[in-house]
Amino acid sequence: MNKVFIVGIGPGGVEYMTAEAMQAMAQADVLCGYTVYIELVRELFAEKETYTTPMMQEKERCLWALERAQAGKTVAMICSGDAGVYGMAGLVLQLVEDYPDVEIEVVAGVTAALSGGALLGAPLGHDFCVVSLSDLLTPWEMIEKRLRCAAEGDFAVCLYNPSSKKRADYLKKACDILLSAGKSPETVCGWTRNIGREGQKKKLLSLQELREETVDMFTTVFIGAESTKNLSGWMVTPRGYERKCRS
Amino acid sequence: MNKVFIVGIGPGGVEYMTAEAMQAMAQADVLCGYTVYIELVRELFAEKETYTTPMMQEKERCLWALERAQAGKTVAMICSGDAGVYGMAGLVLQLVEDYPDVEIEVVAGVTAALSGGALLGAPLGHDFCVVSLSDLLTPWEMIEKRLRCAAEGDFAVCLYNPSSKKRADYLKKACDILLSAGKSPETVCGWTRNIGREGQKKKLLSLQELREETVDMFTTVFIGAESTKNLSGWMVTPRGYERKCRS
Repeated sequence: MNKVFIVGIGPGGVEYMTAEAMQAMAQADVLCGYTVYIELVRELFAEKETYTTPMMQEKERCLWALERAQAGKTVAMICSGDAGVYGMAGLVLQLVEDYPDVEIEVVAGVTAALSGGALLGAPLGHDFCVVSLSDLLTPWEMIEKRLRCAAEGDFAVCLYNPSSKKRADYLKKACDILLSAGKSPETVCGWTRNIGREGQKKKLLSLQELREETVDMFTTVFIGAESTKNLSGWMVTPRGYERKCRS
Repeated sequence: MNKVFIVGIGPGGVEYMTAEAMQAMAQADVLCGYTVYIELVRELFAEKETYTTPMMQEKERCLWALERAQAGKTVAMICSGDAGVYGMAGLVLQLVEDYPDVEIEVVAGVTAALSGGALLGAPLGHDFCVVSLSDLLTPWEMIEKRLRCAAEGDFAVCLYNPSSKKRADYLKKACDILLSAGKSPETVCGWTRNIGREGQKKKLLSLQELREETVDMFTTVFIGAESTKNLSGWMVTPRGYERKCRS
């Protein structure tokens, strides 16, 4: 079947995958994706052909998948988290017009904002923004503008890609922007690392403390709204503003 | 076991639930939740006790769950979509301090921003905001402020609760705010209705057209960023700004 599934598998472990994601992988002739994610699913489908590429070769990987599907195969392209949120679905859909026989199906998955959120409590219980601090594909000025708007709107904010070797100070820069745009230093924040995998960790802290925190690329960072509370170690953004007045 | 799982089951069908959500429900002595969601899972666990309450009695439902857990039961509180995003996790965590023996575990699920996004393509492929138009618990001025900030930051925006009988014109009001705050009338938008259920529908349209659209409370609305495209009927927000220059 000339088909590419783009499959979000969630944070990693089999328990976080939807039945739909499992079915898509089971139907596929070939599994492809970033090496680390393929390792996570290879043992489930040991008999299947796999194709892996390193981190940066994403366009090449999408073209490979589309070529295989054009040749009659069913391909499952594996994404961590969701297939759409900073995932490969958009890139495949940008390239598919040259492969008119190929059918596309996007299979949603639990993105880190949700899996990390569950670990912390309910940091995204009300309106929120998701912002990536990676400036590989986005000018830093745009990231800064978005952080500023997120703070001005008193959104809870979830930060993806908060750090990398080349961008060790980006989280500090982001905190400074949020502080200068109106978030209080006392804002309740949290982070999660290696969600659903070995070495899973979480921590609650203030925005002022987050500014000094060392995080890595496997960390997802949550910055509260004004209403966000630390309730016995749970990070909670209540759904209703009236609750704030009562407490 | 004195435990409450707060379980996000995704948009409805069993295929959208994670294995973790299924396991939590299987472990539970009692399933509780809004009547409609309990109907969705009752046939999977026909032997289990269930407790349902109508839409607005959420605090009462949370207290019931905590009481049962305090009395030694394992309770699974069912939420559609994710457990945290406009879900019950926050409210349970706000109430749990009076039930010191009760353990809480939040189980993430595929929220409508992701399941609806997958149906449309990849509308949330880059930074995005999620905003609820319900002013039951949030002053309309705050909703308006957030929409304005979302537009100023050129975020893709996902709107929850875009309409109800009492709020028939809220989507139009929201579109007008987004337009006045800088979104172009040509912005690529889309909506999904009854995701993963009977009567599933989707539509792509411009922001100008969305302004005139009639939607219901089962609709999730997506408003693109400046870079968002309609690619042969798929709504795609590319991850990289450089791609915009190439196309």
